[in-house]
Amino acid sequence: MRADIDVAVCEVGLRDGIQGIDQFFPTDKKKAWIAAEAAAGVGEIEVCSFVPPSVSGQFVDCEEVIADALTHDGLSVSALVPNLRGAERGFPTGLHKLSFVLSISESHNQANVRCSREESLDRFRQIAELRDSSPENKKVTLAVGLATALGCTIEGQVDPADVVRTAEKALEYGADELSVADTVGYANPTQVRDVYRLLRRHLGDDVVLGAHFHDTRGLGLANVHAALDEGVRRFDASLAGLGGCPFAPGASGNIVMDDLVFMLEAMGLKTGVDLDALVAVREIVAAGLPDEPLLGAIAKAGVPKGFAAANVAA
Amino acid sequence: MRADIDVAVCEVGLRDGIQGIDQFFPTDKKKAWIAAEAAAGVGEIEVCSFVPPSVSGQFVDCEEVIADALTHDGLSVSALVPNLRGAERGFPTGLHKLSFVLSISESHNQANVRCSREESLDRFRQIAELRDSSPENKKVTLAVGLATALGCTIEGQVDPADVVRTAEKALEYGADELSVADTVGYANPTQVRDVYRLLRRHLGDDVVLGAHFHDTRGLGLANVHAALDEGVRRFDASLAGLGGCPFAPGASGNIVMDDLVFMLEAMGLKTGVDLDALVAVREIVAAGLPDEPLLGAIAKAGVPKGFAAANVAA
Repeated sequence: MRADIDVAVCEVGLRDGIQGIDQFFPTDKKKAWIAAEAAAGVGEIEVCSFVPPSVSGQFVDCEEVIADALTHDGLSVSALVPNLRGAERGFPTGLHKLSFVLSISESHNQANVRCSREESLDRFRQIAELRDSSPENKKVTLAVGLATALGCTIEGQVDPADVVRTAEKALEYGADELSVADTVGYANPTQVRDVYRLLRRHLGDDVVLGAHFHDTRGLGLANVHAALDEGVRRFDASLAGLGGCPFAPGASGNIVMDDLVFMLEAMGLKTGVDLDALVAVREIVAAGLPDEPLLGAIAKAGVPKGFAAANVAA
Repeated sequence: MRADIDVAVCEVGLRDGIQGIDQFFPTDKKKAWIAAEAAAGVGEIEVCSFVPPSVSGQFVDCEEVIADALTHDGLSVSALVPNLRGAERGFPTGLHKLSFVLSISESHNQANVRCSREESLDRFRQIAELRDSSPENKKVTLAVGLATALGCTIEGQVDPADVVRTAEKALEYGADELSVADTVGYANPTQVRDVYRLLRRHLGDDVVLGAHFHDTRGLGLANVHAALDEGVRRFDASLAGLGGCPFAPGASGNIVMDDLVFMLEAMGLKTGVDLDALVAVREIVAAGLPDEPLLGAIAKAGVPKGFAAANVAA
């Protein structure tokens, strides 16, 4: 993590936020979004997913978007890869990080990627072997997202012991960092606290543990607060909360990046992000996706009078 | 507090939620709302404010609404009083609690009730004397709300030492309980933690300290989580988040009661409230105020599969 910040925020709107949206987000607007958010100080952006066009038409421009994103100094550029084939496309782009996602819930993994958790772990092992196969590839960070780690729409509650087992396997196979994902917005702060404590106890203090929370049931930022208490210092979020679930109209998706940055900065935690500049990026998203509702409180209400961001105060 | 719950939730929608709404909420629908929410297990409802009709036309039916609310077994019925005159109307109704509000910010107090903080404290002293003047009045709990305790739209940041001083005066004059109010939705979790710690240090462990938070900047439930950590076990909230600020269109007002109950129950904290029954009460609010947006995530998304409320689990 950069030395000048306390908490790293990673924009996932360009991947998780738009993957379920039918309307194609134009390539030039993706580039503009990335440029503006990088300029606002967001240090990492997941810019696309290397899925085949049959899965989502949003990502036919992966290579072009990544090449452009890599022109921004200091920006860590990441992408999601569903399998070895995606990784084979990803590594040559020269990006900084590849993220692989598997579900703790067996049923969800089957529904999502049509294979068992064991097969998913094996896919990740193949990707890690590819990473280790060349000096260039070795520069790429491999992250594993533990989806449905806090609950599943098919199975309901998920066994925390399964989270630990899967995390240990991912690390054994070569993951550089892990992310606990509340994929369907089921988590509550007590549960968040418990799962991070359990993971720390089993994995030790050195493993990088991020958080990928959704705000579907309104507890997203309360869950962030609980994770902060457990020492988590990496959070995914989506500008304007893009990525609502198609099966719950009006329900929000990823936690709102702008509100997250406001909360962290108000708490005195430096994110490196200029909140005003970040909020202004919403206009690019609105122009690119005119039919999508933009969520978030701080963009509507404005910062408190006399608000001093941690970045500025320091 | 009732012995069978861990956290008390108080509905303030019928007062804070509707006081700024022009459209009159019909008396029979107020009664129906109170009846349904009491039946859902909410233990305390602030049912009106004893302000003159010139201040708000919503509360011309105070006495009738209170009399009806008092028919519900086990429900604690409270009302806001702005001054001695309001208290003179309030005590004879036989309600359980009167709440008096003053602002920590001098400018906000002047803007809100057109007098200084000192004069407001003096008004409270008069109310407390009236309470102590008869055995019937002595049955009534006196609560003091410390408005703008976490920030003010006029003055910006508020000195926590002023919160302590005002709290001490209120207790000296006869307050039975205090509530820390983030009237304008400025607070963040670190600030919430700090102010409750400071108050505990100065006031001791026995003083009842509640929380009255607004969700204007999206941090309402994160602030609740911070307050829970500091031992707070009384929270005001408004069904469907009624009470948005007229100066911030779309910005929410009080924290959403339904989402609050979901969070607490999911965390294993018993509220005594049946969440399904609570969510169903939204229909009464919608029918009474067809032009008001109803907020809240859990009403849209539904509870997680396999969700076990603390009430049921216990």
